[in-house]
Amino acid sequence: MWPSNRILDLFDIQHPIILSPMAGSGDHALAAAVSNAGGLGSLPCAGLSVEKIKQEVSLIRETTRNPINLNFFCHSYNEYTEKAERSWLEKFTPYLSELGIEPALGAAGSNKNPFSDEHCALVEELRPKVVSFHFGLPETTLLQRVKAAGCKVISSANTVEEALWLERAGCDAVIAQGTEAGGHRGMFLSKSVAEQAGTFALLPQVVDAVNIPVIAAGGVADGRAIAAAFALGASAVQIGTAYLFTDESLANDMYRSKLKGATDNNTVITNVFSGKPARGFATRLTRDLGPITDTPMDFPMGYGVLAQFKAKAEAEGSTEFSSYLAGQAAALGRRESASELTNRLINEAEEVFSKLSSG
Amino acid sequence: MWPSNRILDLFDIQHPIILSPMAGSGDHALAAAVSNAGGLGSLPCAGLSVEKIKQEVSLIRETTRNPINLNFFCHSYNEYTEKAERSWLEKFTPYLSELGIEPALGAAGSNKNPFSDEHCALVEELRPKVVSFHFGLPETTLLQRVKAAGCKVISSANTVEEALWLERAGCDAVIAQGTEAGGHRGMFLSKSVAEQAGTFALLPQVVDAVNIPVIAAGGVADGRAIAAAFALGASAVQIGTAYLFTDESLANDMYRSKLKGATDNNTVITNVFSGKPARGFATRLTRDLGPITDTPMDFPMGYGVLAQFKAKAEAEGSTEFSSYLAGQAAALGRRESASELTNRLINEAEEVFSKLSSG
Repeated sequence: MWPSNRILDLFDIQHPIILSPMAGSGDHALAAAVSNAGGLGSLPCAGLSVEKIKQEVSLIRETTRNPINLNFFCHSYNEYTEKAERSWLEKFTPYLSELGIEPALGAAGSNKNPFSDEHCALVEELRPKVVSFHFGLPETTLLQRVKAAGCKVISSANTVEEALWLERAGCDAVIAQGTEAGGHRGMFLSKSVAEQAGTFALLPQVVDAVNIPVIAAGGVADGRAIAAAFALGASAVQIGTAYLFTDESLANDMYRSKLKGATDNNTVITNVFSGKPARGFATRLTRDLGPITDTPMDFPMGYGVLAQFKAKAEAEGSTEFSSYLAGQAAALGRRESASELTNRLINEAEEVFSKLSSG
Repeated sequence: MWPSNRILDLFDIQHPIILSPMAGSGDHALAAAVSNAGGLGSLPCAGLSVEKIKQEVSLIRETTRNPINLNFFCHSYNEYTEKAERSWLEKFTPYLSELGIEPALGAAGSNKNPFSDEHCALVEELRPKVVSFHFGLPETTLLQRVKAAGCKVISSANTVEEALWLERAGCDAVIAQGTEAGGHRGMFLSKSVAEQAGTFALLPQVVDAVNIPVIAAGGVADGRAIAAAFALGASAVQIGTAYLFTDESLANDMYRSKLKGATDNNTVITNVFSGKPARGFATRLTRDLGPITDTPMDFPMGYGVLAQFKAKAEAEGSTEFSSYLAGQAAALGRRESASELTNRLINEAEEVFSKLSSG
């Protein structure tokens, strides 16, 4: 039924639906459900130890032998400085007394590590069908080892220039990530979020520019959007936010309550939470300090600083200091199992394809 | 061939392609060509005198008796104050000596007037098939007169809330204007451009929310995008930037040169030119002062202030102070006649529809 088989053939999957890797919100259960339903399940590995990744993959393997994707970050790493943390903390001065928090240094940090030699050895051992990267690609020697292990490599482009760069660097497919997308922007060459394009404009321009197949991401939450992505030239879609609503998602009650309250215009691309631009629900913090601040703390160290504000505020029932990531089509999501969602997406897309051809 | 006939029936047109009204860039020739090819030609009336509108419509009527659309602005009108102009001019201090311009008050102003009793009388006389408004709708008595004259009324929504408001106010159809769109944002309830959605996410949410047919705008520049818009539930598309490339467009050489240099990421939504957010090519000015400044001069008076900088800079070969509006799919445009473009769009869309159904 699919108008293009390029990604199906490349990844050896049945349906061109890729689960977005969502660090902290999806584990083996979500990935296994999507792979088992014929899509491509993705395990977000950026915040996991090597041992934990092994355990998760082995849990997936108890459910399905279908292809899976392991996802890693490739951010460049800036050493912590007390000066940087102090400067970042100063932006929060107005909230300190309100939340009853003593300003204290040493909270900066994150468990989000870039792809390393250790990760690479693990990939060589596990040999997942697909390895996806975010924030560009790892250094050439690591990338070559991943490819030599037989894994297909993909990464996200926010611009045509980034898509061409990824193709030249050896990617087997590229994700065109429009501004609608929830989560972190992949941007590794482009600097200005304000100049990046929505899926409707980005996708066909990436398709025209590269020879490798293109995966559409950003605003894809139902079968209509899948059909639209194929119309614009995509060979698959990557879907995150819609899967946050599923039974298998790790989203907690507060997160699910934000998702239920989603509208077309209550998310924003902001760097005030992690230091890198990411789309999530707009809060007092994104309005006061952003959405984009010129001087964030370097990703991902701001996470630790925010954690103390978030914990205190959430304990008082407020999510104004919480980074709950979601895309602009979040309001289209609903509670169901991940396999029900995957099957619904397939059926809806098929209905749209027939409706379009019966005109 | 079209999967939905709702807009075709409503406007009595053959193809669901609406020319975006582009003040300053399109006149009778462009509108007549699109209407004559079976789409809906739009005449941007905001900057024209009543006499001039009459002349333009009569020139269109020499080419075609097919339905046309007259477009008007509905911005609320703030009286000029010297204080506001002084404060706006101060932002340009760094450029004054560079451009050799003496700071002088009294340049503020614009010929862009909101829809008035005089315009309404003209509409009653000319009875165009469609009247479209931008920046909301006119006051109820004027709107009722337009509807009583038998005209179908449409306007642009940047959010679901705005679409619902327009439907309740009596619009016959609504334009879902995604962030990809070139030109001014229709925003009349929403305040934050950063929280507005791309076409991929906005369109299906507007379709789900309203009962009236929905016209997709933003990032639609070829047949792929038309097919995608129908997949997402649209009953027509509104296309502007692609028509800027045509023989009939009034775009001057400098504008056409900017269009030729368009990429997926060299436009930005900025309010530094007119005082209201509009997407156009990014320049030094949008980077230095914006893209969004909290304290612009009230639309549309900033135009006059900018005109002096623009004229001087352009005389020296620089477009850094020029507002050349364009959408994020501008790079997909090419030089041809407006009827060739309209026919190509129809043929391309048809090809995509058959490709999607042959999967």
